[in-house]
Amino acid sequence: MTAQPTQTGKIIISVDAMGGDSGPGVVVAGIAKSAKKNPEVGFLLHGPKDVLSKLVSKRRVLDGRVVFRDCPDVVTMQDKPSQVVRSGKNTSMWSALESVRQGEAHGAVSCGNTGALMALSMMRLRKLPGVNRPAIAILWPSRNPQGFNVMLDVGADVRADAKDLLQFALMGASYARNGMELTRPRIGLLNVGTEEHKGRAELKEAHALITEFADQANFDFVGFVEGSDIPGDKADVIVTDGFTGNVAIKTGEGTASLIGDLLREAFKYSPLSRLASVLAITSLQRLKKRIDPRRVNGGVFLGLNGTVIKSHGGADATGVSAAIKLAFTLAKSGFAEKLAARVASTAELEQDAAQSALQTK
Amino acid sequence: MTAQPTQTGKIIISVDAMGGDSGPGVVVAGIAKSAKKNPEVGFLLHGPKDVLSKLVSKRRVLDGRVVFRDCPDVVTMQDKPSQVVRSGKNTSMWSALESVRQGEAHGAVSCGNTGALMALSMMRLRKLPGVNRPAIAILWPSRNPQGFNVMLDVGADVRADAKDLLQFALMGASYARNGMELTRPRIGLLNVGTEEHKGRAELKEAHALITEFADQANFDFVGFVEGSDIPGDKADVIVTDGFTGNVAIKTGEGTASLIGDLLREAFKYSPLSRLASVLAITSLQRLKKRIDPRRVNGGVFLGLNGTVIKSHGGADATGVSAAIKLAFTLAKSGFAEKLAARVASTAELEQDAAQSALQTK
Repeated sequence: MTAQPTQTGKIIISVDAMGGDSGPGVVVAGIAKSAKKNPEVGFLLHGPKDVLSKLVSKRRVLDGRVVFRDCPDVVTMQDKPSQVVRSGKNTSMWSALESVRQGEAHGAVSCGNTGALMALSMMRLRKLPGVNRPAIAILWPSRNPQGFNVMLDVGADVRADAKDLLQFALMGASYARNGMELTRPRIGLLNVGTEEHKGRAELKEAHALITEFADQANFDFVGFVEGSDIPGDKADVIVTDGFTGNVAIKTGEGTASLIGDLLREAFKYSPLSRLASVLAITSLQRLKKRIDPRRVNGGVFLGLNGTVIKSHGGADATGVSAAIKLAFTLAKSGFAEKLAARVASTAELEQDAAQSALQTK
Repeated sequence: MTAQPTQTGKIIISVDAMGGDSGPGVVVAGIAKSAKKNPEVGFLLHGPKDVLSKLVSKRRVLDGRVVFRDCPDVVTMQDKPSQVVRSGKNTSMWSALESVRQGEAHGAVSCGNTGALMALSMMRLRKLPGVNRPAIAILWPSRNPQGFNVMLDVGADVRADAKDLLQFALMGASYARNGMELTRPRIGLLNVGTEEHKGRAELKEAHALITEFADQANFDFVGFVEGSDIPGDKADVIVTDGFTGNVAIKTGEGTASLIGDLLREAFKYSPLSRLASVLAITSLQRLKKRIDPRRVNGGVFLGLNGTVIKSHGGADATGVSAAIKLAFTLAKSGFAEKLAARVASTAELEQDAAQSALQTK
């Protein structure tokens, strides 16, 4: 990795300053938050330099911590991925990924258009050898001691066959080891019931494949799990296709948000309940902090040559800072290299396993 | 319908007293609760008569309201559906469905094994002409004025093609009209994004089919919706396949339950928070009542000759009573007959629509 002259010894995160719902001001506030907490992090900031340098100059904590990459164009939420891939060369998103590709940064963070970011990442960073479909992994509040479970895929692709699901298990396990310090993560395969005869054909096939692989890949396979286990404590990593995963997390988020609103309403109901809410405020804040989606902001793209983190489009400074922290943690653990080695070493074994699973059917 | 001599003029619900997690005592407590609230309801109760009659005799409100159907066998949660279909003739579940088939009851309620209940229902009651796959519909707390959205399929089958999804839209709309008194329900098709180009091929095909049908079937089609819209206010009926639907509701339930537990924990944290929780108790109860899954207990099997309601296996008396209320409401509205007429009248049109959709592709 080529460190910037002003940033020697730092872990450099490449940040797309544009394309989020709230504009570059929030992104700069987010990196300032990270810089304050973490002296080891430095930034490559992509976007219109005149705008960005003004924002950065107002934050003293960012003195000497930011190198700009001037780019005139922005990928909007409405842009089609195919179009961005063809003509997005001057966008901040493209430039942010380019820095990872060139080895100038240890990871990229963007709040922009998810589809475009995935399409560009696949084109510029390329898939790891042995990976058919990359996946997006997120953290979900759970009953496990670590407080969160890994879930993937949550929307990189709407499909996944048995071999893809095995890859997701391997990549998810690697993420849990490096991002959450779980030495032997427990993997669950999402289904409509826990009995082995249930579900779709590709899931039964994936069940056989993952069982065969668990030991050599150093994880425990707990078999089929249900939607209720995503926030549960039976598994640390939940594996599913991107269609099901996307619907599941959006259902969970929507339900949590409805409960939050109804809770606020309930506390406004009478003078007594308003008094109760004042007394309860620290309890409620504690709860909010525990399940605050901003604290675990960041979908990690797995299966590419390099770490890319998709922050929520509507992320505030806390959210952006959380995404940067995640990119930093993964970079520091050498995650990208470990994942590449893991996938490469298992790619061959996996082909054997797939073959033998087909033969024994 | 042949009413029982002691129950003339009543709406008769056929209740499987066995097979729930908590045994027949809870089921009898549930029907007693319903009988107390609703003078128009009567019961056919299926199970070992010696056990049941003792339980019923303790509830004065059930005097003259219950007719027993003695059956020695019980379908357990472990029984495989295929096995129950072959040799379950003496079970309370089989007997409960038989009463609907014979026209002795206006609907059946069971807390037992879902797979077995669906398999037996399909075999004994048969699918409505024009229906390929029956579906299970549930109510989910939402931001809509009616407080709940209809969602189907939540697990009758793990697959659904475009024509099945159209049937689900028709059946869900009919359920919303009769069960929730929405004259022109808004239907949404679950996908990973709201743009028309997103998602799997069968969803694009279903989008075209449902659009074509919306007007003649007297509902509004709002197009694609996302997981966050299941508890939202963009649609009243959410249509999806049984795999996705099952995962989504279990994720939502699990997340809600985690939040509830964390909330309780938060309120136990300090003396001040414990005081706050005492003051907040009515607020929290109001919230709990609003989203209490027991209040909307009951998955309705749609697409069969007769109404069958699957109550949660772990339902308490309140839950059983809610399932009975739902069976009663649907019976009183003549739902089964209206749905049959709706499906029959559209079956032919639907074939035309499918054909023309294929031709214009």
